[in-house]
Amino acid sequence: MKRKLIILKIAIAGAGAMGGRFGSMLSTTENPVTFIDLWAQHVQAINAHGLLVHTDHGDERVHVPAYLPQDVHGSFDLIVLFTKAMGIAPMLTALKPVITPQTHILVLGNGIGNIETISRFVPKDQIIAGVTVWSAALNGPGEITMKGDGGVTLEALGSNEAPFFKQVVQVLQDAGLKPTASHDVLAAIWRKAALNSVLNTYCTILDCNIGEFGQLPDHNAMIDGVLSEFSQIAAKQHVHFDAADTKQLIVAQFPDDKNGLHYPSMHQDMAKGRKTEIDFLNGYIAKVGAREHIATPINAMLTALVHSKEKLNELQSSREKVATPV
Amino acid sequence: MKRKLIILKIAIAGAGAMGGRFGSMLSTTENPVTFIDLWAQHVQAINAHGLLVHTDHGDERVHVPAYLPQDVHGSFDLIVLFTKAMGIAPMLTALKPVITPQTHILVLGNGIGNIETISRFVPKDQIIAGVTVWSAALNGPGEITMKGDGGVTLEALGSNEAPFFKQVVQVLQDAGLKPTASHDVLAAIWRKAALNSVLNTYCTILDCNIGEFGQLPDHNAMIDGVLSEFSQIAAKQHVHFDAADTKQLIVAQFPDDKNGLHYPSMHQDMAKGRKTEIDFLNGYIAKVGAREHIATPINAMLTALVHSKEKLNELQSSREKVATPV
Repeated sequence: MKRKLIILKIAIAGAGAMGGRFGSMLSTTENPVTFIDLWAQHVQAINAHGLLVHTDHGDERVHVPAYLPQDVHGSFDLIVLFTKAMGIAPMLTALKPVITPQTHILVLGNGIGNIETISRFVPKDQIIAGVTVWSAALNGPGEITMKGDGGVTLEALGSNEAPFFKQVVQVLQDAGLKPTASHDVLAAIWRKAALNSVLNTYCTILDCNIGEFGQLPDHNAMIDGVLSEFSQIAAKQHVHFDAADTKQLIVAQFPDDKNGLHYPSMHQDMAKGRKTEIDFLNGYIAKVGAREHIATPINAMLTALVHSKEKLNELQSSREKVATPV
Repeated sequence: MKRKLIILKIAIAGAGAMGGRFGSMLSTTENPVTFIDLWAQHVQAINAHGLLVHTDHGDERVHVPAYLPQDVHGSFDLIVLFTKAMGIAPMLTALKPVITPQTHILVLGNGIGNIETISRFVPKDQIIAGVTVWSAALNGPGEITMKGDGGVTLEALGSNEAPFFKQVVQVLQDAGLKPTASHDVLAAIWRKAALNSVLNTYCTILDCNIGEFGQLPDHNAMIDGVLSEFSQIAAKQHVHFDAADTKQLIVAQFPDDKNGLHYPSMHQDMAKGRKTEIDFLNGYIAKVGAREHIATPINAMLTALVHSKEKLNELQSSREKVATPV
């Protein structure tokens, strides 16, 4: 591995499953990594024992300092954002003291609209956006599982020719994160968001896994309803979006030896009573549709149903069911 | 109670909760009643011990003969249909031998399209259609609960002036079933179907009771989405439908001392792994919409989601869930 002249100070903001994986892999390079997370117990566990990671090659303890957002000090060259979409604004608000005109933000999380959110905090040329197909699971405080292969597609919103961007790509490369520079990362973001707006959303509403969704008699119509509205909103926003290609990618997840037996992350969030990312998936399409007078009834309905399930989680956790026929 | 000259031979086809209630109340008149049902254990229990009914005034055993459809013989003046909507055609097919040109069919069950189905078996002037707000619950083989007050709104598809229709109204009156003759029963059927297409459908998809549905932040938009498509299809079919009035009726069910604590019948069907009546509620609107090129995306989506849950009941009953994050 060639030595680089400049060392990057890297913060991982949102050190859950994916943040933990990226931080662990980045910590194998010479660039110092700091974890930042809202979950005090997780932060404590990492500082006490290191982050316990279960990998394809065995278990390890990764020793990287961890902080609550309000306790971070100094400044960072690169902040890798891995909060949920709705956590981005609060996290960046908390991190304002450590963001300088030289700080770049790398955002790889799910959902549409993240770039707009981050643009409220830093100029566009300090933003690098992308998608990743790496996966990971948070098992509990201070412990993640990070198995399987992956990759990162990313683009500088300033210029991919900027030396800083090239350095980021090199660092990801050194960490084994398999980066690919893209010149149309928005298309990749929308493609992944559309996939999530189908699989995450339907599996959450229907309480099923991806393979079961693929066995439903109406799954084609249900997919097409979501994607055709995505196409219209993407066209309005001049984003390249190919519904047929996205559908092919979705259908490719159905077999048991692909993702068929998996429950998407939104399903997990719902099962655990957490807020979902629905407003940055189907909800984004419905919101733009309403604003631009483009009919998006399917995405609006699915958004309402997921919000309804979130609300019912609250209501039903504090009330016993009374089953009486009408 | 005045004596009538002509005795009606009455069959209750579908002797579950509601059929059991109507049969029990009709058996208090001098008109002979016969129960017909597909559930052999229920038929046996009724014949062995009578139908055990729990009423506001205590328990009773109602002794009325019960048959499986294939075992019925003779003929009937009036067949009161209380099967689920999708059970009407199979039931009338089985009953063909006992339906004569003098037999009238009274249909009070939920859903739109029942009249079209029955018209395939008898001429329109042998059909009486209506809605009822009586309620009842089937507790098990040979046992129902029938409490609270109710009423029946009905109309002869021939003429409300026909002597037979007047006699049916009188018999229902004698039985305490509180009939009201209507000259626009289709409007009443659509109003009830629209109410069911909101409350039954959303409570089933979201697994909640009526009061919880009323507490959801998006419940107004969810109601309006269904009803506005009902309005368009009703207009196309020249049925009087008032969305605002129907919405008022729906909202009136929310309080705990109305139907707030109740789970609609479709929710019960789903919980017990039975097929629902969705194709005769939201599904009817979606089907006509597709045929007439009127956009009905909300009702189509809700229909697909309910069918999906039916299918998942089948799949999941034979498969263990594997919870793995993606």
